[in-house]
Amino acid sequence: VSDSNEQTRELANKIAFGNMTGCQPALVGVGKVRDVVPGMHSNTILTSGAPLPWSEYSGGQRNAIIGGALYERLAASAQEADRMIAAGEIQLRPCQDYSCPGSITGVYTSSMSVLVVEDHTTGKKAFCNLYEGAFKDKLTYGAYNDGVRKNLDHINGAIASILGELLDVGPVDLKPIMRSAVHLGDELHSRNTAASVLFIREILPRLLSHYGKRKKEIDLLLEYLKEQYCFLRISMAASQLMADAAKGIDHSSMVVAIVMSCKEVAIRVSGLGDIWFRAPLPEMDMKLFGEYTRDDVLYAGGESCICETVGLGGFAQAAAFPLQSWVCASPPDMVKRNEELYAITVGENPEFHIPFLEFRGTPTGVDVEKVVETTITPLLDVGVPGKDGNQVGAASMRLPSEPFQAAADALLSM
Amino acid sequence: VSDSNEQTRELANKIAFGNMTGCQPALVGVGKVRDVVPGMHSNTILTSGAPLPWSEYSGGQRNAIIGGALYERLAASAQEADRMIAAGEIQLRPCQDYSCPGSITGVYTSSMSVLVVEDHTTGKKAFCNLYEGAFKDKLTYGAYNDGVRKNLDHINGAIASILGELLDVGPVDLKPIMRSAVHLGDELHSRNTAASVLFIREILPRLLSHYGKRKKEIDLLLEYLKEQYCFLRISMAASQLMADAAKGIDHSSMVVAIVMSCKEVAIRVSGLGDIWFRAPLPEMDMKLFGEYTRDDVLYAGGESCICETVGLGGFAQAAAFPLQSWVCASPPDMVKRNEELYAITVGENPEFHIPFLEFRGTPTGVDVEKVVETTITPLLDVGVPGKDGNQVGAASMRLPSEPFQAAADALLSM
Repeated sequence: VSDSNEQTRELANKIAFGNMTGCQPALVGVGKVRDVVPGMHSNTILTSGAPLPWSEYSGGQRNAIIGGALYERLAASAQEADRMIAAGEIQLRPCQDYSCPGSITGVYTSSMSVLVVEDHTTGKKAFCNLYEGAFKDKLTYGAYNDGVRKNLDHINGAIASILGELLDVGPVDLKPIMRSAVHLGDELHSRNTAASVLFIREILPRLLSHYGKRKKEIDLLLEYLKEQYCFLRISMAASQLMADAAKGIDHSSMVVAIVMSCKEVAIRVSGLGDIWFRAPLPEMDMKLFGEYTRDDVLYAGGESCICETVGLGGFAQAAAFPLQSWVCASPPDMVKRNEELYAITVGENPEFHIPFLEFRGTPTGVDVEKVVETTITPLLDVGVPGKDGNQVGAASMRLPSEPFQAAADALLSM
Repeated sequence: VSDSNEQTRELANKIAFGNMTGCQPALVGVGKVRDVVPGMHSNTILTSGAPLPWSEYSGGQRNAIIGGALYERLAASAQEADRMIAAGEIQLRPCQDYSCPGSITGVYTSSMSVLVVEDHTTGKKAFCNLYEGAFKDKLTYGAYNDGVRKNLDHINGAIASILGELLDVGPVDLKPIMRSAVHLGDELHSRNTAASVLFIREILPRLLSHYGKRKKEIDLLLEYLKEQYCFLRISMAASQLMADAAKGIDHSSMVVAIVMSCKEVAIRVSGLGDIWFRAPLPEMDMKLFGEYTRDDVLYAGGESCICETVGLGGFAQAAAFPLQSWVCASPPDMVKRNEELYAITVGENPEFHIPFLEFRGTPTGVDVEKVVETTITPLLDVGVPGKDGNQVGAASMRLPSEPFQAAADALLSM
């Protein structure tokens, strides 16, 4: 690599990093996918990960896609849905092409509701569907049955509606909440405990002013918001917007998406457009919940690692020591792993700070060339999907090096 | 020390520790000092620390006591108040004898409002007056003027009244809030950031149900509760109740109060009744706010270290890394200092856990004999009072060994 190429790369990464960290996401509303997500048709279904031929979607992710088709009444039976997807009569598309980060299976259909996050300066938007709540079976985790359908109707109906009404009062700036939450022990992927409370504190004036006429709905919403994963969807939408802001910078070697399907992990790089660099899924260090065993685990995809893409999750582990059992590491090891990631990132986050590291900014913006150079790969905090259509645990996952090597090669050959 | 004496001591400390940690404080109401604090007369004024002759109260603490007399209209002028206190016409009493922990100067007068905290099992109560809020001059810090008086009227009036009304709905259990807050980076002395938000989350249903008829008052209360030191008063009342629960166990060498006046630090020990063991005030490692310099600092007493007495504050520093600049220590040093305190405490707190130490309970219940043995003395997180009647900084303070030595000697001579 010549000096001038290196300078070009550095400058490009600086721009990408500046765009990512400069983005100021605000939660502006809740809308139906078909109304607010550009390019979505009534027969489009989104799912997590770099796209695969239909035949290669298996287990929970396949179930969820078919479930999505049934939920949307695009098909009358699983068999019919299967045939229609295979025939392209139902369009299966990757979440990332729609700025809709997928949680686990990541199924979005046109009648679902999504959180809308916007950057005031650029007017750009990103989205995320809503957490399915305390109900055990979840489409997100690959389950579909009458209970799942009714629960989806409730979440996409009553819950989305009252939340949307409260957001109509005005946007909620997310950076201040996320910044404070990281000081309070969240890494905003596997842990959103502080952010959940801070969010309610932030919308408290609206809750109070609307309670007179919306008592029942607000009581339901508050019950729903007790689940810490509700805020994860907000964190994902915000992270997606920040990651998208860093896209398309010529010569930049910075990662702008990390995603999983049931089969593969894949990344996209700012200077390499829409190309996916893929590898088989790696192993996870798991903490399984309750009575679950490893036999209950079944990979089903996931794009919540959009949080890691912008310096959260595994990149902020040392801010979230209460997660120690979930990420299978002692606090000193969490610190060590977190510090290591500075060697593969473009910069230190100007807004997400790690108290234990004397408020050093989280390592942000993975540089594929640095990954190749150091052989250190990103660390992800993830939820573990089970065969039974629920979350069966939490884990930390170290990405394989192949996609980073392939992306670095592609950059050099440009 | 004979084996049997040692066994007696151990058993006594075990009982004291069990009483302290078993205590379950609930915030049950707000009341006027004269109505709810047993033994308080209209001409009684409480102040922080082991009692001194009137002539030895100086600076901010003297000003605050005189200010308290004027606020209560016990005297028409500072000169008259001075004379009446000297003559015993105004009774000056130590806060600790009334279960009313004193913040800095610790002035309580009969018409002030206090938070009432109660242990359901024993029916015992402790109290704390309310934080004076964002107003710069504070009686707490030794200021008294028209502004201070008006602000005290507001806090003891409107704020106390609406908070009391909300508490009339039912008690608020404090241990769950305090326990969660310690997981979220509070040590509940110098840092109450998480607890402040958790408290609002806890009383949210009452805020919502009362808002229709109390909009103005609730808006005022919520503005007031933005100050993180508001929760410190709740934490102090709860800590006082826990410390009081451990009092009066024959042969116990466990500390049940750590207090300061403008002149001295002093402790009380469970097996030694109401005796004060005193020493001159030690130096502090300070973080001064804004433009303040060391010339602006003036000791004015303080009993918020009742929190340290029960395993919070300096005994939970490693749970609160965001405090690093306030306690003048790097996070690894905060860990080291916190770990050291296990050598001088009776046990590990069953409810306050330090995430970084793999959720080990905070070192709780200082044993004066262990202090003498190890020469390690308690570490306090404190606020720094200034000559101008405001908080000018935060600090950590290491107690001198003399009171512990004197208490240990007293125990042996029994």
